[in-house]
Amino acid sequence: MATGKINVSVENIFPLIKKFLYSDHEIFLRELISNATDATLKLKHLTSIGEAKVEYGNPVIEIKVDKEGKKIHIIDQGLGMTADEVEKYINQVAFSGAEEFLDKYKDSAKDSGIIGHFGLGFYSAFMVADKVEIITKSFKDEPAAHWTCDGSPNFTLEEADKTERGTEIILHVADDSTEFLEDSKINELLTKYNKFMPVPIKFGMRTETLPKPEDAKEEDPAPTQEVDNIINNPNPAWTKAPADLQEEDYKGFYRELYPMQFEEPLFHIHLNVDYPFNLTGILYFPKLTNDLNIQKDRIQLYQNQVFVTDNVEGIVPEFLTMLRGVIDSPDIPLNVSRSYLQADGAVKKISSYISRKVADKLSSLFKNNREDFEAKWNDIKIVIEYGMLSDDKFFDKADKFALYPTVDGAFYTFEELQEKIKATQTDKDNKLVLLYASDKEAQHSYIEAAKAKGYEVLLLDSPIISHLMQKLETSKENISFARVDADHIDNLIKKDEEQISKLSEEEKETLKKELEETITNKSFTVQLEAMDSNAAPFTITEPEFMRRMKEMQQTGGGGGMFGMGNMPEMYNLIVNTNHALVSEILTADAPETKTRLINQSLDLARLSKGLLKGEELTNFIKRSYEMVK
Amino acid sequence: MATGKINVSVENIFPLIKKFLYSDHEIFLRELISNATDATLKLKHLTSIGEAKVEYGNPVIEIKVDKEGKKIHIIDQGLGMTADEVEKYINQVAFSGAEEFLDKYKDSAKDSGIIGHFGLGFYSAFMVADKVEIITKSFKDEPAAHWTCDGSPNFTLEEADKTERGTEIILHVADDSTEFLEDSKINELLTKYNKFMPVPIKFGMRTETLPKPEDAKEEDPAPTQEVDNIINNPNPAWTKAPADLQEEDYKGFYRELYPMQFEEPLFHIHLNVDYPFNLTGILYFPKLTNDLNIQKDRIQLYQNQVFVTDNVEGIVPEFLTMLRGVIDSPDIPLNVSRSYLQADGAVKKISSYISRKVADKLSSLFKNNREDFEAKWNDIKIVIEYGMLSDDKFFDKADKFALYPTVDGAFYTFEELQEKIKATQTDKDNKLVLLYASDKEAQHSYIEAAKAKGYEVLLLDSPIISHLMQKLETSKENISFARVDADHIDNLIKKDEEQISKLSEEEKETLKKELEETITNKSFTVQLEAMDSNAAPFTITEPEFMRRMKEMQQTGGGGGMFGMGNMPEMYNLIVNTNHALVSEILTADAPETKTRLINQSLDLARLSKGLLKGEELTNFIKRSYEMVK
Repeated sequence: MATGKINVSVENIFPLIKKFLYSDHEIFLRELISNATDATLKLKHLTSIGEAKVEYGNPVIEIKVDKEGKKIHIIDQGLGMTADEVEKYINQVAFSGAEEFLDKYKDSAKDSGIIGHFGLGFYSAFMVADKVEIITKSFKDEPAAHWTCDGSPNFTLEEADKTERGTEIILHVADDSTEFLEDSKINELLTKYNKFMPVPIKFGMRTETLPKPEDAKEEDPAPTQEVDNIINNPNPAWTKAPADLQEEDYKGFYRELYPMQFEEPLFHIHLNVDYPFNLTGILYFPKLTNDLNIQKDRIQLYQNQVFVTDNVEGIVPEFLTMLRGVIDSPDIPLNVSRSYLQADGAVKKISSYISRKVADKLSSLFKNNREDFEAKWNDIKIVIEYGMLSDDKFFDKADKFALYPTVDGAFYTFEELQEKIKATQTDKDNKLVLLYASDKEAQHSYIEAAKAKGYEVLLLDSPIISHLMQKLETSKENISFARVDADHIDNLIKKDEEQISKLSEEEKETLKKELEETITNKSFTVQLEAMDSNAAPFTITEPEFMRRMKEMQQTGGGGGMFGMGNMPEMYNLIVNTNHALVSEILTADAPETKTRLINQSLDLARLSKGLLKGEELTNFIKRSYEMVK
Repeated sequence: MATGKINVSVENIFPLIKKFLYSDHEIFLRELISNATDATLKLKHLTSIGEAKVEYGNPVIEIKVDKEGKKIHIIDQGLGMTADEVEKYINQVAFSGAEEFLDKYKDSAKDSGIIGHFGLGFYSAFMVADKVEIITKSFKDEPAAHWTCDGSPNFTLEEADKTERGTEIILHVADDSTEFLEDSKINELLTKYNKFMPVPIKFGMRTETLPKPEDAKEEDPAPTQEVDNIINNPNPAWTKAPADLQEEDYKGFYRELYPMQFEEPLFHIHLNVDYPFNLTGILYFPKLTNDLNIQKDRIQLYQNQVFVTDNVEGIVPEFLTMLRGVIDSPDIPLNVSRSYLQADGAVKKISSYISRKVADKLSSLFKNNREDFEAKWNDIKIVIEYGMLSDDKFFDKADKFALYPTVDGAFYTFEELQEKIKATQTDKDNKLVLLYASDKEAQHSYIEAAKAKGYEVLLLDSPIISHLMQKLETSKENISFARVDADHIDNLIKKDEEQISKLSEEEKETLKKELEETITNKSFTVQLEAMDSNAAPFTITEPEFMRRMKEMQQTGGGGGMFGMGNMPEMYNLIVNTNHALVSEILTADAPETKTRLINQSLDLARLSKGLLKGEELTNFIKRSYEMVK
């Protein structure tokens, strides 16, 4: 039996790391600035614990683009490297100086914000450069070093005359990557990846207007000066303690994140957890419109203040992807290219933590300022309802603060609602019937009929509300939802009392036969009912079950039966046998009069249900103009 | 000056490759089956060119799960390895045997379908296994080899007694990966990644029903036999020549791809290109519904018949992501983890090739069977219109086959339409006015008014149609679109003729004053017009420009002005001074009669435009029931 060691040769692996490890060439800048940041933060740590006896100062990282010379410079004022350290950290693929540093200073450096992990990032420079130079001077009293490599695994190393502490990386940009020599491109990348990194990043200069001196004349221009253009905010709001932030700071940070967004967020949730994983962040509830899809992908994921991705699928529960904001966690496992997540158990834990925090925040908002919560309900309900549908733990919490608005603008929790309507809306089988409308305008006459009985009518108009009703009906006992136009009101909530019909059985039979002969449209099923004589003579209703199944199928997800979407619409035509007009129909002598009365009444009932359209509506209007005259 | 070579140690890189290279642990199976496939295809090639003097036979790749023993076996009957070859290919990280093979047999093996590329895939086994064994017997006359490695870079290698040609990989599944010991999980992975791989893959057995023997009795059960369960189709439709496929084969392949999809595709496009890149595939136009977002991500990307991803962003032009089907290209540059695309110039070329092929196919469908093309127009228009908006080259081609349907079901190309309506619909300023409706039912009375003038009315109801109209208006000369309810018909297409008003200027002034006093709703601007006495007495119109801007803002994209979405709705109330009812309003003595006439007419006009809703509609209906009696 032979034993041995698996072997790797730099000739094989180096081309892969250079060209195929990262999907986007543009991340070279993120990687090099991350290294510069680590070099700076390491020096900060070493000076703070007294291991480096130098002045830390106010270091910046500078990016310079030399378009003529086809070069990009990344210059830091961090701890720098000696020639020996270059040998150790640069010439050794996949040896992570950051990991080594964190290992060595385990306890003290835990929260230092060091970014590096895999020891591969530096080589991403070769994705855009055909030659890379490093000129570096250590904070230690040793000569500066100058390393050069043309992308083959061969390098040269010599002394340099650099005197200031820190490292300068020079990229000789390859001909296929000249786009990165444009200031606008570099600006775009800095804004995307480095906007909140912890060390100030300078890119060019900008003109600042100064206050006018006291003795300046009105017409004198205000004086200006050239200052360093710092592109990042090294201390973004999420890295601070909630206690140190005012409402205004949160709003300001929202504008920083979404400068093109004019609407203010409704409220925020500051995430901050140390154990069992480290995660900070701020999530915002924006005002949502009805197009849910275009609103996703607005949460940004950072790792130690470095932008990673805006695809937070998996980390943030799906129902919360409509939120906005930032999540920063060094504990989210990333792919070696640092642009993709590793599918992993830790991610699930983070997701359920976020879900719980959001539920808790909503609960406290509800308790502390119900009025405000009610005012915002319409803008946040879609998230909450979606969460209740997709996450049972969230359902249990949200069930206590989810609101059910009425058409008159009152808001009840489910429990309050039950209490409120128990006496009036319990039917003879002891089932509590929750009446609702989906559109106050379109269902106006039906809402009026229900209100005339003293019933509460909810206004439930979310796109996924049918799914939620289904869930509530199965998870609560003895309740059911019914839309106000699902049947005539006495049938929706059946009581023991019975209305007496003015018509005899015989008359009813004749009437029904005549109606069925005149009404040729087969989608209407005629149904005679003895109702209050003030109720409408004709009413069109659409049974709850069928309509809801159809709606559920349209909005996707389970519950809808297959093929239901293609079923024809079926309606009931409820004829009030106690209405004077109906008696008139029965007793009309001339057949034309009878036909006219029936058709005109049917048209009015269809109009009320929004079913009179097109040519039929045009004809109805023409006839009506005649009648006006 | 020192020179040297960048160095890589296996201790550093091996843990990264094992754990962080691939985002999804599940891809280990894809990688190992890809290796087994390559081993089989290499043998096929060597026997075909006479370099291997063995019988190729009908090799299969077998997957076995030993749940008890916590092992997964992947067994192939390919060319196998000698002990020396194990040393060379397995013990050398990132040395790709596939690349070497393709290099050696450059010309003859070009189309052999070899998958391997980076020489890393094998190590993905360590994502799920804490120990991996290889037992392999080369087709050459040498003893079998047995390699074992526990995931440290150390291995053992000894002789084995395997006698059949080929390689068996044994994964000792780690405790955190026992999900992969479930048959259902393995089945799921095989279906996702390996469904169309070129060598048959066996996973377990299944029972097959045989035909009954001739002498069997009615009540005898049909005989059955156990057969290998082959999970893949090694020769999927896209790998065949279009000439060898019938319409039925394409439909069958669609069902193979989307077994849960019951609707048939409208038509297919077979992609097949050799130069400047290699790409095959079949795209299908499905029937689309109005929710565009949920229909994306249905095109699958393969590389040499191995599934890569269903996110084809970049490769397929965005407007075609609503299509379905398969694209297979060895030339699409992938990330080293083979699950992500490399952003790259080659991808752009592929994207524009696909766009061109789709345009050509549509053009030939239009030319060869216009009737069928018209019948399918409503199902494909959204893709074509979106393409015309987003891709100028596509616009130029599509402009010749894009159809404009009329409300009466005729279909014109733009050129035909121009020809057809030139004589009638050119206004006095020589501008061609294209009338359209967005909803045949809701705009019925306006459509009728336009048709009464002999005009053609288009039915344009796509969600993005306002954007396309805008584009047509700027790219064609002297044309403009106007919705039939944008103004009264004589104003929409202004001719030189003028209608004489029955009312004097003085009467008009009085009438206007009275109307403005009675109509308190400020969203209506009263406008008196001398029209045909048969035209409606009151008509409500909504100016084209404002309405269209609002619509464009709602559907996103450029063109809409900022803040337009929040503007109040503004309407014109056109009063026909030549209508008898209007004279009656003017001459009515009693103020109540005048008010009643005006209000009832206004209600009818609002009804016609779909503006009478809620309480106002309920009241209108109540009044109308009274009038019926």
